[in-house]
Parts: sequence; C-alpha cells; structure tokens
Amino acid sequence: MNFIATIAINRKNGVADPEGNTILEALKRLSYSNVKFVKAAKLFKVGIEGDEENSVRKTLEEISQRILSNPIIENFEIISIVTIQSAGKK
Amino acid sequence: MNFIATIAINRKNGVADPEGNTILEALKRLSYSNVKFVKAAKLFKVGIEGDEENSVRKTLEEISQRILSNPIIENFEIISIVTIQSAGKK
Repeated sequence: MNFIATIAINRKNGVADPEGNTILEALKRLSYSNVKFVKAAKLFKVGIEGDEENSVRKTLEEISQRILSNPIIENFEIISIVTIQSAGKK
Repeated sequence: MNFIATIAINRKNGVADPEGNTILEALKRLSYSNVKFVKAAKLFKVGIEGDEENSVRKTLEEISQRILSNPIIENFEIISIVTIQSAGKK
C-alpha cells in the first residue's frame, strides 16, 4: 500500500525564530497591525510504501527524528497519514 | 477575538525541490528504500486579531499571497483557522 504522510517540523519553545520575526516586522510596516505573531516551520510530504499504517508510522517517526528534524532545537509532528489507491497494485 | 492560522506554502508542480530530493537521496543511502518521494514546504503559524473569521481569512489570504509566498513558484493553503479564548477579553 502507498501512503502519503504530512510531517511538521516546529522549533521548540524558546528557540529563536528569525524568519518569523522578520516577517512579523514586515507585516507591521505594511500596517497589518492585527497580526500578533508569526512562527515559521517546515513541512514535509513523504510518499512511503508499507503493509500497514502502524509500521509506516514507526518508520516515519524514525525518519523525522533522524533526518527531517534537529532534535536539539526542533520537534516533529506527524499531522496525517493517508492511503493512496494505486491502480494495478493490491 | 484571537485566531491562530496554520498556512502551508507549497512549491507549484514542476518547480525543482532540491531540499526534498537531497533528503530522499539520504534516505535511500540509509536503506529507507520504501520511501518514494519527499517534498519540502514551509509552514507558518500566524496569530491574528479580528472580529470574525471571514475578515481574518481575507487578511490571511492577502498576507499569504503578498508576504509569505512567492506566487511565481509557490501556492499557499490555509490549513486551519482556530479561535483562541483569551481571558479578560470579550
């Protein structure tokens, strides 16, 4: 079965977010004064094959921890795992 | 009212994704051969004040188009807008 996972990589609390802060300052200059904060993060879509969702989730957690995130300053969150129907495969 | 919006900024189809491809190659080298593709994107959490969700959504669409994304190569998607209860405010 084919799955598509959506994984967010967020900065841990207290870790500086220069990208978010720069965007917030730009918004203030452009008179979007009702914007209170901006936090920048990363998003990954991962296409993965596997027999069932639990084993796929385990692999995704391993990948998120080892490859996609820096565990010192970032947390990962598996937002969704959806199954993709692929023609010609059981 | 206070809202928190989650906005994804994805590359348009056909736009090169060197970050995603580099991660995919690293995963292959590490024997995660069941991973079929990796797409890298950006995620923003925006805290915003407003009277009601429709006007807030309109502002967020404007911000996403003008500031958060590069419309030549990126699409934006407002994933969610949630209301935050704030003590002491009506």
